[in-house]
Amino acid sequence: MITNFINQEIADFSVNAYHNGDVTSVTKKDTLGKWGVYFFYPADFSFVCPTELGDLADHYIDFQKANTEIYSVSEDSEFVHKAWAEATDTIAKIKYPMLADPAGKLARFFNVLDEEAGLAFRAVFIVNPEGQIQSYTINNMGIGRNAEEILRTLEAAQFVSEHGDRVCPANWHPGEDAITPSLDLVGKL
Amino acid sequence: MITNFINQEIADFSVNAYHNGDVTSVTKKDTLGKWGVYFFYPADFSFVCPTELGDLADHYIDFQKANTEIYSVSEDSEFVHKAWAEATDTIAKIKYPMLADPAGKLARFFNVLDEEAGLAFRAVFIVNPEGQIQSYTINNMGIGRNAEEILRTLEAAQFVSEHGDRVCPANWHPGEDAITPSLDLVGKL
Amino acid sequence: MITNFINQEIADFSVNAYHNGDVTSVTKKDTLGKWGVYFFYPADFSFVCPTELGDLADHYIDFQKANTEIYSVSEDSEFVHKAWAEATDTIAKIKYPMLADPAGKLARFFNVLDEEAGLAFRAVFIVNPEGQIQSYTINNMGIGRNAEEILRTLEAAQFVSEHGDRVCPANWHPGEDAITPSLDLVGKL
Amino acid sequence: MITNFINQEIADFSVNAYHNGDVTSVTKKDTLGKWGVYFFYPADFSFVCPTELGDLADHYIDFQKANTEIYSVSEDSEFVHKAWAEATDTIAKIKYPMLADPAGKLARFFNVLDEEAGLAFRAVFIVNPEGQIQSYTINNMGIGRNAEEILRTLEAAQFVSEHGDRVCPANWHPGEDAITPSLDLVGKL
Amino acid sequence: MITNFINQEIADFSVNAYHNGDVTSVTKKDTLGKWGVYFFYPADFSFVCPTELGDLADHYIDFQKANTEIYSVSEDSEFVHKAWAEATDTIAKIKYPMLADPAGKLARFFNVLDEEAGLAFRAVFIVNPEGQIQSYTINNMGIGRNAEEILRTLEAAQFVSEHGDRVCPANWHPGEDAITPSLDLVGKL
Amino acid sequence: MITNFINQEIADFSVNAYHNGDVTSVTKKDTLGKWGVYFFYPADFSFVCPTELGDLADHYIDFQKANTEIYSVSEDSEFVHKAWAEATDTIAKIKYPMLADPAGKLARFFNVLDEEAGLAFRAVFIVNPEGQIQSYTINNMGIGRNAEEILRTLEAAQFVSEHGDRVCPANWHPGEDAITPSLDLVGKL
Amino acid sequence: MITNFINQEIADFSVNAYHNGDVTSVTKKDTLGKWGVYFFYPADFSFVCPTELGDLADHYIDFQKANTEIYSVSEDSEFVHKAWAEATDTIAKIKYPMLADPAGKLARFFNVLDEEAGLAFRAVFIVNPEGQIQSYTINNMGIGRNAEEILRTLEAAQFVSEHGDRVCPANWHPGEDAITPSLDLVGKL
Amino acid sequence: MITNFINQEIADFSVNAYHNGDVTSVTKKDTLGKWGVYFFYPADFSFVCPTELGDLADHYIDFQKANTEIYSVSEDSEFVHKAWAEATDTIAKIKYPMLADPAGKLARFFNVLDEEAGLAFRAVFIVNPEGQIQSYTINNMGIGRNAEEILRTLEAAQFVSEHGDRVCPANWHPGEDAITPSLDLVGKL
Amino acid sequence: MITNFINQEIADFSVNAYHNGDVTSVTKKDTLGKWGVYFFYPADFSFVCPTELGDLADHYIDFQKANTEIYSVSEDSEFVHKAWAEATDTIAKIKYPMLADPAGKLARFFNVLDEEAGLAFRAVFIVNPEGQIQSYTINNMGIGRNAEEILRTLEAAQFVSEHGDRVCPANWHPGEDAITPSLDLVGKL
Amino acid sequence: MITNFINQEIADFSVNAYHNGDVTSVTKKDTLGKWGVYFFYPADFSFVCPTELGDLADHYIDFQKANTEIYSVSEDSEFVHKAWAEATDTIAKIKYPMLADPAGKLARFFNVLDEEAGLAFRAVFIVNPEGQIQSYTINNMGIGRNAEEILRTLEAAQFVSEHGDRVCPANWHPGEDAITPSLDLVGKL
Repeated sequence: MITNFINQEIADFSVNAYHNGDVTSVTKKDTLGKWGVYFFYPADFSFVCPTELGDLADHYIDFQKANTEIYSVSEDSEFVHKAWAEATDTIAKIKYPMLADPAGKLARFFNVLDEEAGLAFRAVFIVNPEGQIQSYTINNMGIGRNAEEILRTLEAAQFVSEHGDRVCPANWHPGEDAITPSLDLVGKL
Repeated sequence: MITNFINQEIADFSVNAYHNGDVTSVTKKDTLGKWGVYFFYPADFSFVCPTELGDLADHYIDFQKANTEIYSVSEDSEFVHKAWAEATDTIAKIKYPMLADPAGKLARFFNVLDEEAGLAFRAVFIVNPEGQIQSYTINNMGIGRNAEEILRTLEAAQFVSEHGDRVCPANWHPGEDAITPSLDLVGKL
Repeated sequence: MITNFINQEIADFSVNAYHNGDVTSVTKKDTLGKWGVYFFYPADFSFVCPTELGDLADHYIDFQKANTEIYSVSEDSEFVHKAWAEATDTIAKIKYPMLADPAGKLARFFNVLDEEAGLAFRAVFIVNPEGQIQSYTINNMGIGRNAEEILRTLEAAQFVSEHGDRVCPANWHPGEDAITPSLDLVGKL
Repeated sequence: MITNFINQEIADFSVNAYHNGDVTSVTKKDTLGKWGVYFFYPADFSFVCPTELGDLADHYIDFQKANTEIYSVSEDSEFVHKAWAEATDTIAKIKYPMLADPAGKLARFFNVLDEEAGLAFRAVFIVNPEGQIQSYTINNMGIGRNAEEILRTLEAAQFVSEHGDRVCPANWHPGEDAITPSLDLVGKL
Repeated sequence: MITNFINQEIADFSVNAYHNGDVTSVTKKDTLGKWGVYFFYPADFSFVCPTELGDLADHYIDFQKANTEIYSVSEDSEFVHKAWAEATDTIAKIKYPMLADPAGKLARFFNVLDEEAGLAFRAVFIVNPEGQIQSYTINNMGIGRNAEEILRTLEAAQFVSEHGDRVCPANWHPGEDAITPSLDLVGKL
Repeated sequence: MITNFINQEIADFSVNAYHNGDVTSVTKKDTLGKWGVYFFYPADFSFVCPTELGDLADHYIDFQKANTEIYSVSEDSEFVHKAWAEATDTIAKIKYPMLADPAGKLARFFNVLDEEAGLAFRAVFIVNPEGQIQSYTINNMGIGRNAEEILRTLEAAQFVSEHGDRVCPANWHPGEDAITPSLDLVGKL
Repeated sequence: MITNFINQEIADFSVNAYHNGDVTSVTKKDTLGKWGVYFFYPADFSFVCPTELGDLADHYIDFQKANTEIYSVSEDSEFVHKAWAEATDTIAKIKYPMLADPAGKLARFFNVLDEEAGLAFRAVFIVNPEGQIQSYTINNMGIGRNAEEILRTLEAAQFVSEHGDRVCPANWHPGEDAITPSLDLVGKL
Repeated sequence: MITNFINQEIADFSVNAYHNGDVTSVTKKDTLGKWGVYFFYPADFSFVCPTELGDLADHYIDFQKANTEIYSVSEDSEFVHKAWAEATDTIAKIKYPMLADPAGKLARFFNVLDEEAGLAFRAVFIVNPEGQIQSYTINNMGIGRNAEEILRTLEAAQFVSEHGDRVCPANWHPGEDAITPSLDLVGKL
Repeated sequence: MITNFINQEIADFSVNAYHNGDVTSVTKKDTLGKWGVYFFYPADFSFVCPTELGDLADHYIDFQKANTEIYSVSEDSEFVHKAWAEATDTIAKIKYPMLADPAGKLARFFNVLDEEAGLAFRAVFIVNPEGQIQSYTINNMGIGRNAEEILRTLEAAQFVSEHGDRVCPANWHPGEDAITPSLDLVGKL
Repeated sequence: MITNFINQEIADFSVNAYHNGDVTSVTKKDTLGKWGVYFFYPADFSFVCPTELGDLADHYIDFQKANTEIYSVSEDSEFVHKAWAEATDTIAKIKYPMLADPAGKLARFFNVLDEEAGLAFRAVFIVNPEGQIQSYTINNMGIGRNAEEILRTLEAAQFVSEHGDRVCPANWHPGEDAITPSLDLVGKL
């Protein structure tokens, strides 16, 4: 039986990244202790992805407030990330680390590699500070994502992480009323 | 290598459903020819799920306009769905078929069954008229979903289905400008 | 060679139960030290089962006198048991624990799960205080059981448990004469 | 997974039998077309079994009215059945065929052979005219059976066979009111 | 390669026996220390075997003088042995233990079980005080044996056991001249 | 499960033989159509075997009258058989074929080869005209056989072959009364 | 036994390429009929490779005269090749197709993929018009190649292809004397 | 997956060699501590190879200056190497050890043995002082090699060995300018 | 079980040979129709073998008269055989084909290859015109052979081939009296 | 790969032997410390072998001088050896032990058993004092051997054993000049 990824701990990894003009390395160990959003996209210098990466860049401050790092990931090298950032304004404004996965290690662990094309599907994984996956979405190639919905789901996951999994209504946002669980509510909602 | 679900065709199935006060059966064949949204939730008569199902019920007309049927799925029997609808207002207003999956056939195919608990994770699958999965999200137990985001992703998938996968920006909604793909745009966005 | 269940010890288990208005858990360990009757039925809120459960509820005092607990089991959740008890008089009068087996653990151990339907066959198992099965009956879906016969068999099993297995005539009831075994009786009865 | 016997078709067999003073053979084919009750017991000339066989002999006319043949089975030879009938009044009155299973073929198929002792457990199988098992009970060595309960279960099985499996209340006897199934009864009984 | 039984040690066993009006148990350990003759026959109450058992009973005193126990064995139970002895004069005069082998343990070890019929072939095994087979004969179902020849072979085996295996002429009886082995006799007899 | 040899058909074989002063070959095909007695002994020129072979030679006319050929078999070559016959009076009088089995083919089929010593055990097999074994005796090395008992068993086997296996008392000789089988005799002998 | 690549036929492949400002596809079939030079390098936009690619570009006319196509290969996408050509003069002057192998198909077939890094070793394969490898060189990451030596080896391979493999001295260049093979030369050179 | 030889350590070996008029042995251990060039050729006394070996002999002093030993290898014995050197001027001038590999140990390790012909392909392996392969070329039978290119590649490998693998341009020779690696150069060369 | 080579047919082979100053090929097919002597020796140019090859060369005319070809075999190439013949008088006088077996095909079939040394043991095989081995001798490395004994054995093999295998005394030479086989001679010689 | 017997150590064995009128046993251990010649022949009392055994008997004194024991071996028993020696003058004069191998142990180890016939091929093995085979010859059934050649080969083996394997010319006899090995002789003989 294939088990799904929920609550599965991410694998050890060590990849190069382009981050704030420099080449660094990022390992699993570096990512623990805060929430993580792994944001896969097919290819640098492709003409349809940058808007998604820019949408995330525009909300980056909200993720940071939520004690969360964003990791964009494609199968391109760190040299290509750098060249792209130098060539394109949308990419130039990115402040989060852009992971380079030419060997497909991350894409294979998260099971989002199109082996035939050598490209990653558009996918997003929300990982808690212990490295366990709490939510994930995988879209076919052209279907873009929404930074606000990622943020909402992240905050719901953080809420459940604190209050347990018998509490959280649909489309909940922080600040809305939380339902207090009680056996007496069975069949009443 | 575990392959992910994107573009995989759903399995044959035949389950009972509670639909508009009646017990009917729903098979894979019944679902082909229009888009489908499979919406899994853990349990009937549980006090935290109904709000999600109600959120979907409130947007049902928009899904219907988009040539899409919604299928809610839990591991309860059709008898329990009926009893729940009779006991609870939120459920009573549901017009889409509520599939009964006590044998776990659907939950196992979609890989969302928590075998230890006998309950389904909160997951949503968007399936095209040929029965191929185009997008899916799986959340840990307590993390609710958002009917509007499901609708937005469905519409993006439908747009890609018509126009190819090299077109669709992030957070796109129908009516917004679509980017015309061209090699000259490489590195310009 | 498949061995049958007689004298086999039941497996470890831990399930939720609805019992006297509350949700509790029941484990194998909880059941040892007294006789147990495991009473499987297909589904809550189904219109043909309640009379069997009520028949057992009406004889519950006799089982208690015989140092025996009854455990009804279906593949429904504890939330559904609660809702059923609240909705139906026959169920409301039940005093024994109603086990919730949505993951099929008990039904698979006792080999009474119809995997195709996700429902349990109508079956009853009599288990001694050491957890060893002494008698069992499995009926096809619609064939109901008889609380008095279960009680009679239980008492015969208890009598054999005390006096050995070379004593008990057919259709024996407590208080009737017990036959004293003797080699001289061979061929004389 | 061990599957249980419900609806399983019995195996081909051919055994000798002692029947009305003669030695005959009985095969699976001979048994089809009417209901069958296979009644296993440990040993001829043993001092505790004859009462069960006599109890059945006393109700034989009722089983015949229900278009049903009884087959008693032990691991003794047909010569021993004959000698037993000649030596014992209880056995002498038996009119149904007494099957001889010294090779253990029937006992192994029905999974009731105690391989260590070479004896059959006390078990009863109710088989429909197509040769499919509809109900069975297996008791530990000393626990006797009840001809009236076997008859009641047989009649319930026959009723279900005609009217479907969504009808039959507990402890039902022919002539009592049958419940007419209807979805409206869900949660009302 | 299948090895034959000569010099093979018999397996551990424990069976019930009918002996001098009583039911006892006989184990391998009980049989060591004296010579043993295991005499298999197909079935009690069968009309052709008793003469063989009576022939052995008539020579029993000679076997006893030769420090040898006889064990008759069939696949019937001890209850049947008892009933047979009570019903038949030939059997009533038997003083040696009649082993009950309904589980086929002895017949399978000695490889004389007709699995299709559940009966033993007519076979005789001569076993030395260490439990090792020294001679055996297996006949098809109807071919009777000869107590005098068994006795003669037993005495030859005992003679060889004392004097080595290079001594004993054909059809030798105790008291006849024994040939003294010598290399000079090679080619002279 | 090791099956015994009763009713097993002998294997194809082709061996040399010393017969009436000549070397010939004997094949399975040559042996069909009449009864056969295969008489194994350890070694030519050994000082203890000749008396057995002479005993058989003295009764050869009786076997011939019973439509039976005798085949003596050892692991020596045909040259050695010839030399032995020339050197020894007892062997010189033999009229039946002496098979040469230096390759162990016959001894291995009949499972009487002591692989460690390269010699055959003393064994005798009675084979019907269809080549099926009906009786066999295997003795440890020094235990001689008795031509008269072989003849008696052969005649019993022939009698059973004609009249069926439910007839023949122990130690029966041709000309003695045969018991007519009848169910009424069960338990009467 | 691992066989080496000499004379092995290349696998079927189909990859995208950047060629003269356009994205095209190149398949094995496209490459047959002329000689091919497959030139692997680690990464686009890396600062040490361009000189090798430029060296080849400068000799491209000589390869074309020799009926040979050059295929540079890296694990980058065609979008990155295009961006690189637009960003760098050395690359801009390349006229041969630059194959995009992000899925690693070519690098795995030619066994030059560093799976840990996701990059190709520096390797060159000379393939004849039938698609069979005639010469190959694989260097560790930093060790550059020499376009003139590749050209010399190609011409030697072409000469051997026409004249057989018993002719070609070391460091031979077209136009130099070819040695006429003759047995008389054995041991004379 | 077949891994290529780059960075693989050579196997242990011990072979005879003809060296300066003597027969010696050469082991892996003898070769460590300096660079090694293993130069395989098909056969002694063949009329096309000597020019390659002579070309290497003429450059031997340059390899020695570069702290490098040359090992020529064929599948001939040391006796044949000696005879060839005595018979041929070109071979007589060789100062490096000529390894004798009649058992094919070296050719199999380096995967250059044509098993059908029993001859080695023309191949050259450059091995660092730790015994790890840094570069290799394998040519089909008739395609000769170039001592100067081997020397150039060796020197590049030595340069990389000292300065790392992100530095060395194509066709580099010692003394030419080395490029200093810097991230700023990305996309600028 | 390893079977020996007697009467085994030699494998197909095709090898080069040096024969009368030329390089030719020899296949199994070429060798059929006359007797063959395969004469293996360790190595050309080795200082201890030539005397054996010369001894055979001196008797070559006798082998030819006996319709027999000699094939000397070593693991050296045909080029080496030629060089050896040109360098050494003993080899120069050889008229039979000298097979070249550098790939070890013949030595492996005849099981005379010392895999560690890559050399053949000293062995001789006599093969009949049907290609079946009739006699063979294998000696440790230094133990030479004797052309006259090979010739004598060959002639004995040819005699047996004509007259059958029950005739030929030790050390027989053609022209000596042949013993006429007769059963009467058994034990008389 | 099947390895040949050269230098292989003989297996442990223990067989009976006829030696100087007595039956003794011979084990591997008995044979160590001196050279051994194992001389296999097909059968005692066969009319063609005795001349070979007599030829060996006539040279026995020479083998003894060379510190060598002869062991003749056939598949006959020691009784047959004795009878043969008594019946035949040629055999009577044998002084070396005649091993009895009826179980085929020696013939199977030396791989000279014709399993179909149960006879040994004519074979001779020369074994050194450490039990290692140094030379062997195997002939088809009728091809006799030559005691003088066996002696010559034995002496050559002993000479090599003392002086190494690079010395011994063909057809060498003790007392002839031994060639002193020297590299300078390569190509000179």
